[in-house]
Amino acid sequence: MNTEMTTNNITTYMQTLGQQARLASRAMAKADTATKNQALLAIAAAIRHDAAALRAANELDLAAAKNAGMDAAMLDRLALSDKAIATMAEGLEQIARLPDPIGEISNMKYRPSGIQVGQMRVPLGVIGIIYEARPNVTVDAAGLCIKSGNATILRGGSEAIHCNRALANLVKQGLREAGLPEQAVQVVDTTDRAAVGVLITMPEYVDVIVPRGGKSLIERLMREATVPMIKHLDGICHVYIDDKADLEKAIAVAFNAKCHRYGTCNTMETLLVAEGIAKQVLPQLAQRYLSERVELRCDSAAHAILHDYPYLASAQESDWSTEYLAPILAVKVVHDMEEAIAHINTYSSKHTESIITEDYSRAMAFLREVDSASVMVNASTRFADGFEYGLGAEIGISNDKLHARGPVGLEGLTSMKYVVFGHGEIRK
Amino acid sequence: MNTEMTTNNITTYMQTLGQQARLASRAMAKADTATKNQALLAIAAAIRHDAAALRAANELDLAAAKNAGMDAAMLDRLALSDKAIATMAEGLEQIARLPDPIGEISNMKYRPSGIQVGQMRVPLGVIGIIYEARPNVTVDAAGLCIKSGNATILRGGSEAIHCNRALANLVKQGLREAGLPEQAVQVVDTTDRAAVGVLITMPEYVDVIVPRGGKSLIERLMREATVPMIKHLDGICHVYIDDKADLEKAIAVAFNAKCHRYGTCNTMETLLVAEGIAKQVLPQLAQRYLSERVELRCDSAAHAILHDYPYLASAQESDWSTEYLAPILAVKVVHDMEEAIAHINTYSSKHTESIITEDYSRAMAFLREVDSASVMVNASTRFADGFEYGLGAEIGISNDKLHARGPVGLEGLTSMKYVVFGHGEIRK
Repeated sequence: MNTEMTTNNITTYMQTLGQQARLASRAMAKADTATKNQALLAIAAAIRHDAAALRAANELDLAAAKNAGMDAAMLDRLALSDKAIATMAEGLEQIARLPDPIGEISNMKYRPSGIQVGQMRVPLGVIGIIYEARPNVTVDAAGLCIKSGNATILRGGSEAIHCNRALANLVKQGLREAGLPEQAVQVVDTTDRAAVGVLITMPEYVDVIVPRGGKSLIERLMREATVPMIKHLDGICHVYIDDKADLEKAIAVAFNAKCHRYGTCNTMETLLVAEGIAKQVLPQLAQRYLSERVELRCDSAAHAILHDYPYLASAQESDWSTEYLAPILAVKVVHDMEEAIAHINTYSSKHTESIITEDYSRAMAFLREVDSASVMVNASTRFADGFEYGLGAEIGISNDKLHARGPVGLEGLTSMKYVVFGHGEIRK
Repeated sequence: MNTEMTTNNITTYMQTLGQQARLASRAMAKADTATKNQALLAIAAAIRHDAAALRAANELDLAAAKNAGMDAAMLDRLALSDKAIATMAEGLEQIARLPDPIGEISNMKYRPSGIQVGQMRVPLGVIGIIYEARPNVTVDAAGLCIKSGNATILRGGSEAIHCNRALANLVKQGLREAGLPEQAVQVVDTTDRAAVGVLITMPEYVDVIVPRGGKSLIERLMREATVPMIKHLDGICHVYIDDKADLEKAIAVAFNAKCHRYGTCNTMETLLVAEGIAKQVLPQLAQRYLSERVELRCDSAAHAILHDYPYLASAQESDWSTEYLAPILAVKVVHDMEEAIAHINTYSSKHTESIITEDYSRAMAFLREVDSASVMVNASTRFADGFEYGLGAEIGISNDKLHARGPVGLEGLTSMKYVVFGHGEIRK
């Protein structure tokens, strides 16, 4: 397909993808577990078999991206090493081993009228996924959608177009081998941004959009989309060290939550410390952060305690709502848990927060009152992850409250419809 | 409050309601079951006590509506009889008796890392409800939101403004008596339509919009809203009589699904009949419909069978997607179940469909392949209802696939967040 199209052509092209996806979704909803698994394993085999061709396609993308001046971190995500190719194939094999969520019937009960009512788990239908220039997401997303009986339209970052095209062919090959429609997984084969605009405004063909990527992309989608979304937004995660905290746990968790990895959405960006324990815990914690040269942006109380820490700065209002993704941490001393919860419910991106405390009642109150997708007691925010939670795989982490909240696995790509077993009952 | 405001004032007014609701939602999320039930019972008592004042407020609305030429059906919905007032109070008492969904923790499991992960049911936060001129919805919606620990902003049809104002005061009184914030339930006290435009575009204060009402209202909201919605759309419901149907069940169900009530969204609007049984079942069924003078809009095959039925018409393409809400039924003869499912998945509003069959495999396939919120075997579509399903109460019936599908009760107004019980675990 030509990547230069007029806006009119783009609309027609995307609608064709939509119609094809809708049609394919009917066949996918009917497909049994063995057939879906066969497709996943065939795709994995094709990826292993064609590793050299994938590397070649990836080289084209990398060369163009380097020419265009892409930064090192993004080039790293775009690159497809032999190891990354093997990991993609293993990911599909792992998805094949997961239980099939489709068709499960739950809560089936007799009602006084005589009917039996329950709920059946079914695919959502057609899922549109918009993501960065990361070829592995193409395969992971395709795998999750196939297993959950959905059709999908994938719109990856344009810098990965050659690689995504090559992957799309392997996916089609695997679907064909299993007797499933090739159009169950379609990669948008144009780098024109107008394609996204069409994708998010055709609710007749697309049931849900899963956007991944920068905050500005998602804000644009929120304004323009008429298709519902499961949004993967930013992670402004908090750890609150209560004055009833175990000091050792507090230091281990607060260090891990910041320094285990800087670039992930479940990394702590703000540390809140109860004033009753601040003088004890902050200096010891600073010793740990010093080893990683973490910059501490402190409110006045924390600043006074840490006055001789070498990487010290004064926190501005904007620090409380900044996702650093870097060795930088905002630090605030609060009066008590109430103030910590109020701060979190004001500034958090509703991703993940953790309290460190040995006090039972406070732990329970924190769990209940903090309005975030994951709320933890005495654990690192870095655990907010589909694999760590036992979902087997994840398509993203939802900051939304409706439908799927937190890490989204296969179940997040399904819906529960009511099913009624009757015996000729009529309403009286 | 003055009902004449400038657009600027409307924006400020609605944002104030939003801020107040957000604040109140925090207190509601913390409220225990006994306190919420106390508020519900206090509101019920206040409604009974002030029945005369409610009637008087309703008379003002009715007089204005009659002057404005409102039709009889809408006047009927607007009118608040003594019986309707008693029913509102009983509805609140019934909600008080329902189990509290909030705080339930499920699926709590140990993970290899040592953490325990589960999900906790929590309120959504702030729910905006947009509905017709039906005062009883004001009380039902307030009751469901209070019980589920949410704050709510209610925007009822402008023709009911006096009555809604009076009800709002009684709700506030009940909340106050229970020690809950009055602003947990706020009635929008302006009839200006601009208020809706603001309500649906302030995601910082409103977590979800539940719109009820005409298709044109909801289509407008879909275009403009940036807050997610649980949409109550139209009901183009189907019954499919399979050639393996029990004739007696087929006739009883198809008659009940159309004639039990004409104006409800779970009423059948299109009847599909397998050609193998059409000549047997259609004439007998027509005898039943004749007693109610139901107009039958038939495709050519059904038309040929029913040629001497007195209220016969030829179906046009538009009939397959019309919600009549009247004694009119579209009738089509199909080759087999496959064609019936294809027709349904094309024209249905994804509300409720039923198959009449004694064939096990077809029943199972129909349940799985029909993409609607409720799918039934051998039962009247009229059962698609929160009370009939055992939810105890409903705020609407969702045509959406995400989050809540089908009748929406208390659980539909909640969200599941992940909770993690740790013991100082860090990510390795």
